[in-house]
Amino acid sequence: MSRSALYENIRAKQSFLCIGLDTDIDRIPKHLLASDDPIFEFNKQIIDNTQDLAIGYKPNTAFYEALGPKGMESLKKTMDYIPDDLLVIADAKRGDIGNTSRLYAKSFFEYYNADALTVAPYMGEDSVSPFLEYDDRWIIILGLTSNKGSNDFQHIESKDGIKLHEQVLMTCATYGTADNTMFVIGATQAAYMTKIRKRVPDHFFLVPGVGAQGGSLSEVAKYGMNNQVGLIVNSSRGIIYASEGEDFAEQARQKALVVQQEMAQLLAQYADRLS
Amino acid sequence: MSRSALYENIRAKQSFLCIGLDTDIDRIPKHLLASDDPIFEFNKQIIDNTQDLAIGYKPNTAFYEALGPKGMESLKKTMDYIPDDLLVIADAKRGDIGNTSRLYAKSFFEYYNADALTVAPYMGEDSVSPFLEYDDRWIIILGLTSNKGSNDFQHIESKDGIKLHEQVLMTCATYGTADNTMFVIGATQAAYMTKIRKRVPDHFFLVPGVGAQGGSLSEVAKYGMNNQVGLIVNSSRGIIYASEGEDFAEQARQKALVVQQEMAQLLAQYADRLS
Repeated sequence: MSRSALYENIRAKQSFLCIGLDTDIDRIPKHLLASDDPIFEFNKQIIDNTQDLAIGYKPNTAFYEALGPKGMESLKKTMDYIPDDLLVIADAKRGDIGNTSRLYAKSFFEYYNADALTVAPYMGEDSVSPFLEYDDRWIIILGLTSNKGSNDFQHIESKDGIKLHEQVLMTCATYGTADNTMFVIGATQAAYMTKIRKRVPDHFFLVPGVGAQGGSLSEVAKYGMNNQVGLIVNSSRGIIYASEGEDFAEQARQKALVVQQEMAQLLAQYADRLS
Repeated sequence: MSRSALYENIRAKQSFLCIGLDTDIDRIPKHLLASDDPIFEFNKQIIDNTQDLAIGYKPNTAFYEALGPKGMESLKKTMDYIPDDLLVIADAKRGDIGNTSRLYAKSFFEYYNADALTVAPYMGEDSVSPFLEYDDRWIIILGLTSNKGSNDFQHIESKDGIKLHEQVLMTCATYGTADNTMFVIGATQAAYMTKIRKRVPDHFFLVPGVGAQGGSLSEVAKYGMNNQVGLIVNSSRGIIYASEGEDFAEQARQKALVVQQEMAQLLAQYADRLS
């Protein structure tokens, strides 16, 4: 999916919501466990009930890997099921030397047919560049993450006064372009978003951490929105586990609707920024 | 596997060789393609022919993931097949927020029953600590990698004069102990090994990059060996693809034997360092 198509989707749906399919066999409603593939059945119903409110879905691959080969089948079926006009992000946080990253690219962009893959920056350019050889696919590089451990290394200041996450953004921005590279910037890091936005004005950010992790959507929009919105805000647990009952998909829809409505409001509020 | 058991194995076998099972369906001998599971069949014959010369095997999970669920079945069969007294390293370079890393730990330490897992440090402590809750298992954290891209971030110097990879070693060493944590230090980085060894004197290093990537085994031993050897040197392509014919496993054995003999020599040469 191109950047312009993504922006058009956001405008059309008045939403920059991505729904995280962190589907945990221990948390899905019990009545689904009787079906052939409970994980896929759960995802299918979530997708059926929320696809008009979201611009993408982000399966976290760990949840599927934890179930072995059968889980990977559920992942494949889920990714195939997501309609083509929605962004499919495989949240796998991969990264290895070149010949290995090439295989991960093959796996996620060919076999699973994802539009985007999250990748870790620590190993530098050759760990990332194989993913950039695919047209209309995205890599989403960890920039400043939402978790507590982000303080361990991401804020280390170089002798030139540049924090590690800023250097990661600046250097990784040179690997590709704003048309094939995004960055993960946690919603809990809104205080740094203004400075981050100056470093990479055009890139889309994938923003986790709204909801369960405590980030604020309005702050993210205030400090992070650029002239093509430039934000994909992910919510996982706060939406998909809205109910443990048979009404789980309808309840998920209600939660997604609340977020989408807040997003529509924010898009109106910052309309003067948009191109 | 405990650190003392690992050291005992190294002494008994006079080897600190780990064989990387980067098994690529496009590179294995053609006669294997007729079997039910060519990847497993290849690995099985490699393991049968080299297990007395190596102290561990390291399947790079990307090679298996690239084949979808069937590939993950080959991975599981391979890992189950490796004898218990050899270290099984899942080279997956995972790392995510705590609740997700917990799932990766479940996947690799419970489902695949690996002894060790490679992990990426960028997201800090909570991305790593779930793996440390397992007894007798290891995390192997990326320190200074063997690839060209390692220059992008790993050598950034902080305002306190500490390079990023050194800070990663020092900080990550506090998450666990030398009994459950190792570091990846590329063989191509031997020039930095003395300084690195001072930062983490007791930890084992997993050392890729000997062979195809051009690192020198004798330099790694000279600068990296500690009183319990502290080195696991991995070789993948240089051993497993020694021949494309029906004699591939025997030829792999010959290549592994050459490395093991050099290792025995180095263990003798530095015997005064060993406890």
